[in-house]
Amino acid sequence: LDKKLKSATALACANIALIKYWGKRDPILNLPAVGSISLTLDALQTKTRVIYNPELNQDLLTINNSEATDAQTKRVQKFLDIVRAKYGFREYATVISDNNFPTGAGLASSASAFAALSMAATCAAGQKMTKKDLSLLSRRGSGSAARSIYGGIVEMQTGEDPKGEKDYAIQLATPDYWGLRVLILITSAEEKKIGSTEAMNLSAETSPYYQQWVISAKSDLHEMKQAIQDKDFEKLGELSEFSALKMHALPLTSRPSVIYWNSGTLDLIEEVRILRQQGIPAYFTMDAGPQVKVITLSEYAGSLMNHFSHKKGIKRCIESKLGADVYLTGDDS
Amino acid sequence: LDKKLKSATALACANIALIKYWGKRDPILNLPAVGSISLTLDALQTKTRVIYNPELNQDLLTINNSEATDAQTKRVQKFLDIVRAKYGFREYATVISDNNFPTGAGLASSASAFAALSMAATCAAGQKMTKKDLSLLSRRGSGSAARSIYGGIVEMQTGEDPKGEKDYAIQLATPDYWGLRVLILITSAEEKKIGSTEAMNLSAETSPYYQQWVISAKSDLHEMKQAIQDKDFEKLGELSEFSALKMHALPLTSRPSVIYWNSGTLDLIEEVRILRQQGIPAYFTMDAGPQVKVITLSEYAGSLMNHFSHKKGIKRCIESKLGADVYLTGDDS
Repeated sequence: LDKKLKSATALACANIALIKYWGKRDPILNLPAVGSISLTLDALQTKTRVIYNPELNQDLLTINNSEATDAQTKRVQKFLDIVRAKYGFREYATVISDNNFPTGAGLASSASAFAALSMAATCAAGQKMTKKDLSLLSRRGSGSAARSIYGGIVEMQTGEDPKGEKDYAIQLATPDYWGLRVLILITSAEEKKIGSTEAMNLSAETSPYYQQWVISAKSDLHEMKQAIQDKDFEKLGELSEFSALKMHALPLTSRPSVIYWNSGTLDLIEEVRILRQQGIPAYFTMDAGPQVKVITLSEYAGSLMNHFSHKKGIKRCIESKLGADVYLTGDDS
Repeated sequence: LDKKLKSATALACANIALIKYWGKRDPILNLPAVGSISLTLDALQTKTRVIYNPELNQDLLTINNSEATDAQTKRVQKFLDIVRAKYGFREYATVISDNNFPTGAGLASSASAFAALSMAATCAAGQKMTKKDLSLLSRRGSGSAARSIYGGIVEMQTGEDPKGEKDYAIQLATPDYWGLRVLILITSAEEKKIGSTEAMNLSAETSPYYQQWVISAKSDLHEMKQAIQDKDFEKLGELSEFSALKMHALPLTSRPSVIYWNSGTLDLIEEVRILRQQGIPAYFTMDAGPQVKVITLSEYAGSLMNHFSHKKGIKRCIESKLGADVYLTGDDS
């Protein structure tokens, strides 16, 4: 009984940014160049168990019942090194992580993964963290993970502090504030060709539009917060599309250029516009991958799911309402 | 015999910009915000006959044996008003224009049309124009028409002169300087949804990236001239893709956004990249429409034509070598 291992299991949701995050002002501390606003997605969850074991001589990672890749394992080891250094302990861990959605296909699995890992890794180490602390910590693993600490509608703040003490997320609205729905339309299950960190760095170094992206982000954040406060869905949607296209223009104009879209992506963008002309409130957004996410209101979600699930070129169609804060599942108690 | 009408017929080629033109610094004089560099395309020609007739009370326009639209007719009338005012005569004209390629499908028919019209309209009026004069004049009809006055590789210059006296094209290289070929891959024969002048103005007013586009154009022009001088095909191709993507990022990030691509466009971009990985020198460019133009070298053109003509989604495939200067056909002598 003395040998009981310290462990904890946490569950976090992925999120989709409406006002996009692209670019880092500090790659080591992982400080974003711009703030962002996201919806936490109930349908895309990661559950992560961390078990510290004094007999291990390195961290081990399992994702969806398979051994993780070297790159994935290294990224988690680096993150756990930060946790160990911060709280002064030495045990390595077994990390068991399960997604209910495909990894690496532009569905931001790193956001839910590092949000869940932050809570599980600190709780298993006996630390009691505030949400703010968890957001600051998870940011070190993945910029968008800082937002997945909270449910509902979330803002990732960014400041000028070189240590990033203001670079954490806050909740703008709870999940039940507004009946928003997100349809995740999967056009390709392939892994993305170039990871977002690498593409962000390439954009910052080579895109002629990068500085203007950073400068113009502030007014987008301001306008979006107003739209949320007013529950102005048309404005929220229009700003979401604008921010997504502005963001995608950066890898597109990098040297070499990075095009995350495929032909299915463009067909769906066109389709969403046609639906809108027919009076259906639907707006698109895309992250660093070919998938299209359609933002709509709860009363239209069912018929839109039906519409898209019959479209050719769509491999899978997932409907999500807004998800909750990261939490301990209690599986270890 | 005294009643012989004054007429002239001229032939001009379309062109494809490698360093793109997008945005106007003066909409009335049609002065471009940026310089551009293009290839004159032998395969895409417009032949235009102008017949002044004292008995007409307005200009009449026929395109490809059909009555032109009101918008097309008005544009030509406005242009002929400039010619009449400049040379002090009053006769209206019958204008008969024929393209050997589909109008309005992103194939820059206005470039060859206004280049041919400039020469035919001034010659029929008894004016002897230099190429520089023709370039300055045709610019008033269409910005890209100023380049179609010359064959081979052409630069549209731009200055800071408010009257635009330096805004005319010059020839950088003759058609036989370098064995460049352009394959025009038509993915859709539809008319474009929004004309380039309107989209340019929208970009200038609403895209956060427009100023940077204007600022960064100078170094692209400089680099491209160096690539042409060195006959460095890889550099020419890489710069062409960069300039095209930079240009398309402007309508993309306008409010409302304008997306000229369709799913076929993205498939072909991807296809060109795959061919390049296989060692085939091929680069893409696109104008304000969904068509993809592939730039290659003469020795690869035949096998690439064969490759693309068997691709699904391509409605038509045209191979072009570099075309000649605008000229009088002599049909009226």
